[in-house]
Amino acid sequence: MKIVESLQELRQARAQLAGKVGLVPTMGFLHEGHLSLVEIAGQHSDHVVASIFVNPSQFGPNEDLDAYPRDIPKDLEMLEAAGVALVWMPTAEVMYPAHYQSWIDLDEITQYLEGAKRPGHFRGVATVVAKLFNAVQPDLAVFGQKDAQQVAVIKQMVRDLNMPVEVLVGPIIREADGLAKSSRNVYLKDDERMAARVLNRSLLKAETAFKAGERNGDAIREIMRKHIEDESLARLEYVSCAHEQLLHELNEVEEKALLSMAVFVGKTRLIDNLLLGKE
Amino acid sequence: MKIVESLQELRQARAQLAGKVGLVPTMGFLHEGHLSLVEIAGQHSDHVVASIFVNPSQFGPNEDLDAYPRDIPKDLEMLEAAGVALVWMPTAEVMYPAHYQSWIDLDEITQYLEGAKRPGHFRGVATVVAKLFNAVQPDLAVFGQKDAQQVAVIKQMVRDLNMPVEVLVGPIIREADGLAKSSRNVYLKDDERMAARVLNRSLLKAETAFKAGERNGDAIREIMRKHIEDESLARLEYVSCAHEQLLHELNEVEEKALLSMAVFVGKTRLIDNLLLGKE
Repeated sequence: MKIVESLQELRQARAQLAGKVGLVPTMGFLHEGHLSLVEIAGQHSDHVVASIFVNPSQFGPNEDLDAYPRDIPKDLEMLEAAGVALVWMPTAEVMYPAHYQSWIDLDEITQYLEGAKRPGHFRGVATVVAKLFNAVQPDLAVFGQKDAQQVAVIKQMVRDLNMPVEVLVGPIIREADGLAKSSRNVYLKDDERMAARVLNRSLLKAETAFKAGERNGDAIREIMRKHIEDESLARLEYVSCAHEQLLHELNEVEEKALLSMAVFVGKTRLIDNLLLGKE
Repeated sequence: MKIVESLQELRQARAQLAGKVGLVPTMGFLHEGHLSLVEIAGQHSDHVVASIFVNPSQFGPNEDLDAYPRDIPKDLEMLEAAGVALVWMPTAEVMYPAHYQSWIDLDEITQYLEGAKRPGHFRGVATVVAKLFNAVQPDLAVFGQKDAQQVAVIKQMVRDLNMPVEVLVGPIIREADGLAKSSRNVYLKDDERMAARVLNRSLLKAETAFKAGERNGDAIREIMRKHIEDESLARLEYVSCAHEQLLHELNEVEEKALLSMAVFVGKTRLIDNLLLGKE
C-alpha cells in the first residue's frame, strides 16, 4: 500500500494504477462503516484509493475540528488489511494553499437538515469532494448512507457539474443494538451510549407506522419526535420526513421518503436516517 | 467534424478521440481571435474539441444575452476549416436542467474589474468552464488573453480545485488599427468604430510611460484615463493597473502588471488589456 501526501506524489502514484479506480474519501478514525465502503469500492474496481483528510472547511467555528478523533497508524493498518492500493493524506496546506479561494455551493438541498444547522458545512464538503475527484480521477467513489444529505449533495453536484465519476452508496453499518457506527460514538459515556439507541429505534417506529399505512408527514415526524423526547439524556435537534433527493419536507409520502434526525446525547451530536419505501 | 448536442453524445464522441485532446470553449459568432485559439490547441494536442454555448448564467439581468450575436452555420464552417474534430453545442436545458443548483465561486479575484461591474458573471464563467472540463475531459484548454480576468479566474480555479487540465492562453488578436477583435464589435457604428481605437492606444501610451521608467500605479492609470476622456464618443467604466494574478490595484509596479479597462463606445461595452513587464 502506497501512502502519499503531496498532490504531485498522488498524481504519480495514481498514474501507475491501470484499470478501474474506486475512491473512498474519509476523515480517518476508521470503523467498520468505512471498511464496508472500501469493500464496495473493491468489488467495483481494480484498485481502491482511500483519502484521509479532516477537512477544516466543513467544520463550523463552534464545531469539533480540533477535537475530531484521530488515529492514523490504526487507520493505515485497517486500510492495508482491507486491500487499499493507495492512501492520500494531504495536509491542510496541500488542500488549501495561500490565496485559495474557490468554493462549490449548492443552492437548494443544502438549505435543509444538516445544512440548516451547519451553515457552510456542505460548501466545505462539496468543495473537498470535487478536489478529491479531480486529484484522484476515480471511475467511482463510495460514500456512506449514514451521511444521507452528504450523499444527496454529492450526487447532485456530480450530476450538475458533469463529473465523470459514478457515486455508489454503502448502507449504514450498525452496532448490534442498532446504533449507527460513527467516529463520534467514542465520545459517549456508558449511560449516553444506552440512550443513543433512541435514534435508530425511533426510525424503526416510524417505518413500522409507514408499513401499516401511515403516509402523513407530520404524523411520521411526530412518532419519531415523541420517542426521542421520552429519552431524558437525548435532546432532539431536528427530525425530518423529506423528499429523498431534493430533501424538502413532505406533507404526504407517496412512494419514498428519507427519514432523518440529529440528536444530542449528552454533548455528542449524533445523526441517523432511514429510507422509507426502498424496494 | 462531428457535431453533438447531448452530454451522452458528447461522451461517446469524446471516447473515440485517442491521444491528447485540446478544448476551445466559445460562445460562437467566431472571429480570428477564436481561430487563433483553435490553432494553439491544435499545436498542443491530437484532437481539438470546440464548444459553442452562449452561457446564460454569465449574463446579468441587464446584459445582452438575448441580443448576443449568433451565426451557427458560419461558426461550424470556420471550425471545420480550422481542423476541429468535435463540436459540442449543448442547449441551455442540457447545461442547466431542472433543479440545477451547483455553482463555483471564487472569493477574491472576482471582486475586481469585470467582476465588480458584473456581479455573478464569474460565477457563471467558472461554473460553465468546470462543466465543460468535466464533460469533455480535455488534456488542455485554450482561452484568450482578451478576457484577462477570465483567464486569471480559470487558472485560479484549476489550481484550487486540482483540475487535471493545462490552461493555455492565446494572445489578443487585433484589427490593423489595434482594436481588439470581439464579437461585440459588430455593434459599432462607423464613427464609434473609429473612436474604439482609443482603448488600445491608451494601453500603448501607458506602456510607453512604463518603458520610460514610470512605476507609479496612479500615474499609469491616469495616463489611460486622460487619453480615453479625450475621446468624446467613449465613456470610461474603469481603468486598472493591477497585480497580474490576484488582480488587486497596484500602488507601485514592480516587475509585472495587468493594465485593463472597460469603455462604452456608444452603447457598446468594450474591454481591452495589456500585460506590462512581460518578457
